[in-house]
Amino acid sequence: MTLFNLQTIMDNIKQYVQENKERFLSELIELLKIPSVSADSAYSQDVINTAEAVKTSLVKAGCNFVEICETPGYPIVFGEHIIDTNLPTVLVYGHYDVQPPDPMELWTSPPFEPVIKTTEIHPDGAIFARGACDDKGQMYMHVKAFEYMIANNCLPCNVKFMIEGEEEVGSKSLSWFVENNQQKLSCDVILISDTGMISNQQPSITTGLRGLSYVEVEVTGPNRDLHSGLYGGAVANPINVLTKMIASLHDENNHITIPGFYDKVEELSAEERAEMAKRPYSEDDYKKALDIADVYGETGYSTNERNSIRPTLDVNGIWGGYTGEGAKTVIASKAYAKISMRLVPNQDWEEITELFKNHFESIAPKSVKVKVKPHHGGQGYVTPIASIGYQAANKAYTETFGVQAIPVRSGGSIPIVALFEKELKSKTILMGFGLDSDAIHSPNEHFGIFNYLKGIETIPLFYKYFVELSK
Amino acid sequence: MTLFNLQTIMDNIKQYVQENKERFLSELIELLKIPSVSADSAYSQDVINTAEAVKTSLVKAGCNFVEICETPGYPIVFGEHIIDTNLPTVLVYGHYDVQPPDPMELWTSPPFEPVIKTTEIHPDGAIFARGACDDKGQMYMHVKAFEYMIANNCLPCNVKFMIEGEEEVGSKSLSWFVENNQQKLSCDVILISDTGMISNQQPSITTGLRGLSYVEVEVTGPNRDLHSGLYGGAVANPINVLTKMIASLHDENNHITIPGFYDKVEELSAEERAEMAKRPYSEDDYKKALDIADVYGETGYSTNERNSIRPTLDVNGIWGGYTGEGAKTVIASKAYAKISMRLVPNQDWEEITELFKNHFESIAPKSVKVKVKPHHGGQGYVTPIASIGYQAANKAYTETFGVQAIPVRSGGSIPIVALFEKELKSKTILMGFGLDSDAIHSPNEHFGIFNYLKGIETIPLFYKYFVELSK
Repeated sequence: MTLFNLQTIMDNIKQYVQENKERFLSELIELLKIPSVSADSAYSQDVINTAEAVKTSLVKAGCNFVEICETPGYPIVFGEHIIDTNLPTVLVYGHYDVQPPDPMELWTSPPFEPVIKTTEIHPDGAIFARGACDDKGQMYMHVKAFEYMIANNCLPCNVKFMIEGEEEVGSKSLSWFVENNQQKLSCDVILISDTGMISNQQPSITTGLRGLSYVEVEVTGPNRDLHSGLYGGAVANPINVLTKMIASLHDENNHITIPGFYDKVEELSAEERAEMAKRPYSEDDYKKALDIADVYGETGYSTNERNSIRPTLDVNGIWGGYTGEGAKTVIASKAYAKISMRLVPNQDWEEITELFKNHFESIAPKSVKVKVKPHHGGQGYVTPIASIGYQAANKAYTETFGVQAIPVRSGGSIPIVALFEKELKSKTILMGFGLDSDAIHSPNEHFGIFNYLKGIETIPLFYKYFVELSK
Repeated sequence: MTLFNLQTIMDNIKQYVQENKERFLSELIELLKIPSVSADSAYSQDVINTAEAVKTSLVKAGCNFVEICETPGYPIVFGEHIIDTNLPTVLVYGHYDVQPPDPMELWTSPPFEPVIKTTEIHPDGAIFARGACDDKGQMYMHVKAFEYMIANNCLPCNVKFMIEGEEEVGSKSLSWFVENNQQKLSCDVILISDTGMISNQQPSITTGLRGLSYVEVEVTGPNRDLHSGLYGGAVANPINVLTKMIASLHDENNHITIPGFYDKVEELSAEERAEMAKRPYSEDDYKKALDIADVYGETGYSTNERNSIRPTLDVNGIWGGYTGEGAKTVIASKAYAKISMRLVPNQDWEEITELFKNHFESIAPKSVKVKVKPHHGGQGYVTPIASIGYQAANKAYTETFGVQAIPVRSGGSIPIVALFEKELKSKTILMGFGLDSDAIHSPNEHFGIFNYLKGIETIPLFYKYFVELSK
C-alpha cells in the first residue's frame, strides 16, 4: 500500500473522475432504472434485483468479500475489504431502496427513466429520477470512491459496506441485523451520505439529530356530550381543560415545564454555537418563505439553535367537540391531542415519555380523567466537532470545496444512527452532498452531477485524514 | 263577569277537569297525530293542517276572534278575547310545530300514533308522542284552561293567543310578525308553557335565560404544514398558540379575562340566591350522573349558580393538524375553535362579541394571524321574582301543588323571550309543567297526564292572581 501525498491524491482523483465521469453517470443511471420501492410489494422483485446490482458493483469496484445477507425483510448487501487489522475500519452505510414515486402526474419525466437536465442551482446538470439523491446517488459515490482507492492503490484502511433495502419503511430488518452482527460490523467510524449540505459553495456536516417522543392524550369530562347552555360553567369542559393543560407545558420564555425535562440536555460549547452561527441565514428570507411576521421560540436561542440543538414540544393534532359547518352548542365528553417532543442527545426518549406521562396526569384537575398513550420514539444523536471523524470530514471538504464545512444540527430524527452508536459503539459521520432543493421524497427528485462527482472526490480524502488523525 | 272566591274556583276547576278529562286527552291525542315537523318540507301540509286544528280548538273553546296569520313561513294562529279594555291582557305564546322524530328506530311506539303508558315517574300514565310535551301538550293546557274560564264565566281579564309553527327551526317568521304587530300583540304579561319544572312534587318557575355569543376562531401560523423535526421550536405552532390563547381566557378562579366582560353583569340579590338554593339538589347525584369526580367552575358560586346566573365561555369544538390513526410529525398551518359564551341579562351579545374579537386579536403573538368570525347570538332574559307576573304564578302553583314554586334560572337561551320584551315591552312568565325526563327532542317524548291536567288547573289561578295583583 502506498500513501500518496495530498496534492498527488487530489490531482489523481480529479483526473480519475474526469476520465471516468461518463461511466460513473451511466452506471448510476442503470441503478436508478430499477424501481426499488420498498413500501409497495408490487416492486419486491425490483428491490431484490437492486440488491444484486449493488453487490455486483461492489465486486467490480474491487471489494474482496461481498455477500447478500438475508433478513426477515429485504436483504442487506454486506461488503468487506480488510487490508490490515491493525488499521482503522470505516463502515459505509447507505440504502438502495427508494420512496414511492407518487404523485406520478407531477413528474416532468418518468421517475424510473433517468434524464439529465440543467437547473438554476445545477448549471452542470442533474440526474432526475426517484432515488437519484436519496440514496442511490449518494450511496454510489462511496462505491466509486472505493473503486478509485483500489484502482490507484491508495486505500489507507479497512472498509465495510452495509447497504440496506428498507430505509424508507423504517429499517426494521437493519435493526435486527445490527443487533445480531456486532462483530461482523465492528468498525472505528460509520460514514453515511444520506443528508444534505448548505449549498454547492458551502459544505456542511450534520453533527446532530434530534430524538423523538410521540404521545397521544385523551381528556374525558362528563360521560356524554352535554348542552352547553344547561351545563356550561358548572362542568369541566374537556376541551378548555386540554387547552389549559397544553398551554401550561411552556412557560413565558417558551421553556418546557415538565419537571426533569432538561436534566440531561447538554448546553453546547460557545465554540460550537459560534461555528453553527456561521451558517448563511437570513431571518427575513425565512419569515418571507413561511409568510410569518415573526419567529417564535425559546428565549436565549437563535432560530437555527431552536430547531436543532434545543428540545421542543409541539402539538401535531388536536380535536374534540363539534367541528362541522355552523354552530352547535355542545360540551364534548372528550378532547384529544397528538403531541411530539423533539429531543436532543442524552435525553432518553423512553424516560422523557414517562416524565411527560407523569406530569400530564398530575396537572389534570380532579374534574376530568386523562389518558396518555405513548406512540413511538427514538434517541437523539450527536457527533462532537472535536472528534477525529468530524475533523477528517471537515479537512476533506475544505480541500475539495476550498472552504471549511459548517457543523449543522438537524432538527429531524434518524433513529438508526442512535442504534449504530448503541450496538456498534461507533460514531457516525453524516457527510451529505445533496441539497435541500433536490426534492427528495417529492416528484422530480434529482441529484446534481457536480454534487455526485464532488462526493466521489471528497470521500477518499476523508479516509486519508481519518487514518492520519487516528494514529 | 263574576269573580268566584278561591276555594270555589279551585273546586270548580278540579270538578271540570275531572268531568272532561277523557275529552281533554282525546282532543290532545288527535292534535298529536298530525306530524307537524317544521324542519322537513315533506310535512308542510301537515304543519298547515295543524295550524287549522289549533284555530278550530280556540274557536270551540270560546275565543271570539281567531285568525290564521300568513307569514313568509308557516302561519301563526292568533286569537283574541277582549272582555274589557280597562282590564289587563295576558298574551299566551306557544308553538304547534314539533321536532323531527329521528331516530325512528329508538321509539317504542310510532311517534305520531300517541299511546298512554305508565312510567315510574308517571304512575297515572303519560302520553307518548312527538310534541306531547314540546309543545302541543303544554300549549293545549292553555286552550283548555281558557275553555274552563269561558264555560264557567270566570275569565278575569283579556286574553290573546299567539301560536306559531316555526319554533323548532328558529322562529324567523315570528320575529317578523312581532316586529310588525306591536299594537295587535300589546299585553301586560306574556305567558308561556314551554319549559319544565323540578318534579311533580316541586313546581318551579324559570325566571332567567342566558344569552349567547357564538364565534369561530382561526389561527394561522406558517403558510403550509411543516415538518415538526425541521421547524419544531423555531416557528409558532398555531395549535400550541391557540391552546395558550384559549387557556388565557380564564384566570385561576375561572373568571373570564376579557376586559369589560363582566361590566354589565348584575349580581343577584342575597334573597334571590337564597331562593335558588332551596332547589332540591344533590352534588353527589349530579357528579354520579355525569361520571365526574368533581364539578368545576367559577370560584364563589354554586353549581346551580354557575350554570344559570353566571356568564361562561366554552369551547364547543377544536381542530387542527393530524387527527387520524397513528402519528404524523407535522406542524399545522392552521388551527380552529368554535367558542360560545353564555351571557346573563344586561350583557349585550353584540357588544360581548365585539369585546371577544378585540381581546382575542390583541392577545395573538405577532408570529400568527388570527381571524374571529361571529356566528350568531341572542340576549339573555330575566323576570324579577318581585314582579306581579312571578308572584301570580307562584301563588297559582302554591295553590295547586301545596308548595311554593322555586325560581330557577336556566342556563339555556330562548331568544324570542328577549325579543318579546324588546318589541312588546312586556315580561314573560315561563310556567312550565314538563319534566327533564320527558325526553323532548329525543325518541319516546312523553307528557304526564298528571302534568297536563295540573297545568289546566293551575293556569286559571294565574289569571286570577295576576288581575288581583295588578289592581
